[in-house]
Amino acid sequence: MTSDARPIHRKAADYRWEGVDVLPYKEDERALFKAVTRQVLFCDPEQPSELRYFEVAPGGFSTLERHEHTHCVLILRGCGHCLVDRMVRQLSTNDLISVPPMTWHQFRATQSEPLGFLCMVNSMRDRPQLPTPEELAAMQDDPAVAAFLRGELPINR
Amino acid sequence: MTSDARPIHRKAADYRWEGVDVLPYKEDERALFKAVTRQVLFCDPEQPSELRYFEVAPGGFSTLERHEHTHCVLILRGCGHCLVDRMVRQLSTNDLISVPPMTWHQFRATQSEPLGFLCMVNSMRDRPQLPTPEELAAMQDDPAVAAFLRGELPINR
Repeated sequence: MTSDARPIHRKAADYRWEGVDVLPYKEDERALFKAVTRQVLFCDPEQPSELRYFEVAPGGFSTLERHEHTHCVLILRGCGHCLVDRMVRQLSTNDLISVPPMTWHQFRATQSEPLGFLCMVNSMRDRPQLPTPEELAAMQDDPAVAAFLRGELPINR
Repeated sequence: MTSDARPIHRKAADYRWEGVDVLPYKEDERALFKAVTRQVLFCDPEQPSELRYFEVAPGGFSTLERHEHTHCVLILRGCGHCLVDRMVRQLSTNDLISVPPMTWHQFRATQSEPLGFLCMVNSMRDRPQLPTPEELAAMQDDPAVAAFLRGELPINR
């Protein structure tokens, strides 16, 4: 039996869901990001992980960060690129991305369409860390990473 | 840094993923179901929930079952119907479904296209229970539930 008043079915329309608020990406004013929204699809008290939907508008990007908790990501909409550690990858709808513990990562939309993705995370998780200027400089030693961070993305195939 | 050899990026093509096996839906011979496959997209040792992709072929259906663990479901492909408790719902791509603890539930594809969905579950979970003949009869007292269980689905709007 359903034990409470939580809805069992939430209709979707254009990557918005009934009863799900569209939230700012994050509250942290230090974080550098552009044009990202967040929707918490499942925050089930009976489950120890949550499922969120993030949408990066054309030309936007998520924060470059790392943390002890992991991300399990499925691209739901559009295409773009991600950086995970030193690897830049081109992303298409339904691709999967695993972000291991303490690994720098960032997601970028193309200029032409939004990039929307699901992200499963542990409900109990540590706060993200931002790179120091020294860490950022070390990342930029790799030309492919430096180009990604400048928003100079490979041509989509 | 990536700490092991697990891939960070798995490409998708037609709802199959690089390095992800297409598995039988379940091993339990008692269970009644038809034309369902299972793919485990994320089974991250650092996270206490898993994300799986199930695909029900046209005319197929998942097992009618219940259990203490909950399901958090997002329809990834196609349309169909679900039964959750006494509620029959028409499903479209990106709809969300929550299955509370110990709640009878089943998913059915239409005759015309596959129904594919993501399902987040607790990694540590109890085994599903099947209805007794008495429990099934009690469910069939509701005409809408009885029609759903016979595969007589409402016309898709």
